[in-house]
Amino acid sequence: MKTAERILLTALELFNQHGENSVTSVDIAMELDISPGNLYYHYKGKEVLIESLVALHKRQMHGVLSGGVLASLSPEDVFYYLYIVVEKLHLFRFLYRSQADLLEKYPGIEKSVRNILSALETQLMAMLEKLRQDQALTASQTDKKLLAELLSLVLTQSCSFDSAKGGSDETAQHYHALSLIMVILLPRLNLPDKAIAGIRSAIDGHALANLADHRFSSLEPR
Amino acid sequence: MKTAERILLTALELFNQHGENSVTSVDIAMELDISPGNLYYHYKGKEVLIESLVALHKRQMHGVLSGGVLASLSPEDVFYYLYIVVEKLHLFRFLYRSQADLLEKYPGIEKSVRNILSALETQLMAMLEKLRQDQALTASQTDKKLLAELLSLVLTQSCSFDSAKGGSDETAQHYHALSLIMVILLPRLNLPDKAIAGIRSAIDGHALANLADHRFSSLEPR
Repeated sequence: MKTAERILLTALELFNQHGENSVTSVDIAMELDISPGNLYYHYKGKEVLIESLVALHKRQMHGVLSGGVLASLSPEDVFYYLYIVVEKLHLFRFLYRSQADLLEKYPGIEKSVRNILSALETQLMAMLEKLRQDQALTASQTDKKLLAELLSLVLTQSCSFDSAKGGSDETAQHYHALSLIMVILLPRLNLPDKAIAGIRSAIDGHALANLADHRFSSLEPR
Repeated sequence: MKTAERILLTALELFNQHGENSVTSVDIAMELDISPGNLYYHYKGKEVLIESLVALHKRQMHGVLSGGVLASLSPEDVFYYLYIVVEKLHLFRFLYRSQADLLEKYPGIEKSVRNILSALETQLMAMLEKLRQDQALTASQTDKKLLAELLSLVLTQSCSFDSAKGGSDETAQHYHALSLIMVILLPRLNLPDKAIAGIRSAIDGHALANLADHRFSSLEPR
């Protein structure tokens, strides 16, 4: 792996672990066992690093949030798809941890981050509309918009909310997000009882991951 | 008003506006037109200030989250009650803006903040249980717990989420939180259509505030 790439991944890991605010460029250089000068040669300061990370996140989310994914999405597969979304968001969780502060501190990323959030909500709206057209979801137009906002709130914020409440590992946080989404959608879903029970037990048993990878293998980053 | 109290309220306002991280003790002294030495005489540093603010928030929330409030709560009044909760939480919104970071930075407030969050969820559980007993809500025991977590997530996080997405004033954020809660509970509520329509139009018309004050006047801080 090239040095520039190693720097980026190490920065991402440290930011995710400790929050962007507690990690300095020197911390990143030390973790990599390179000199701060070498790091500076590749990235001229933390701002440039963060901008590069946001660009990477945007590329990854662009793949996951493509309209084409939804065309072949059966109602039963929705939770597998949402599992992938929450996992992808969580890879860059430092961006969602103290978002308002981060955007104020780095105005250079504001537009990109807002674009990602708005692409996420658009995709969730399209997903709910698809469910509605498949007669699998009961929701008025007003409700649909609010539901998309709600799903976006849960997908982006529930993991750091869980962390603030203390405990629970990453996987547990992903499945908790899906449990919360399930309880939102449950009374609106028109699916056979067996399908509902299957989804619930896959969430409770933390068993969405493998199948999700299998069903959406085309979404993996190249 | 005594100097110590003025300092506390000014600190709260500045933290809420700019985030705790961007406000120094000197900023607070300057805003009050007092010397940093005078501020230090009353509060020995930002940590003490923040701890005092958390103590104040805890006292206020204790009143709002008392069990007695629920005993006389009719199903139709739930959204008035939740309006008061979101308003009270929002008075100390800097505590919810970058919560994970804040708790790491000030370990002294961790226990109190977690206690407030857990009291909030306990109260929401009790509220949902009351609705269930009044035959006004359909939810299994498992769903009830997840719904309480979800309501807590929306009440504490949706306002800063809205800010990160850009725009919308405080009042709009409070009502947006209630719209999101309405869309969660709607398909589970067994209330007359007229009652539901009334609540929806009170939320849409931003008309919960006055009535809420009237119905829950005993909850106002003394």
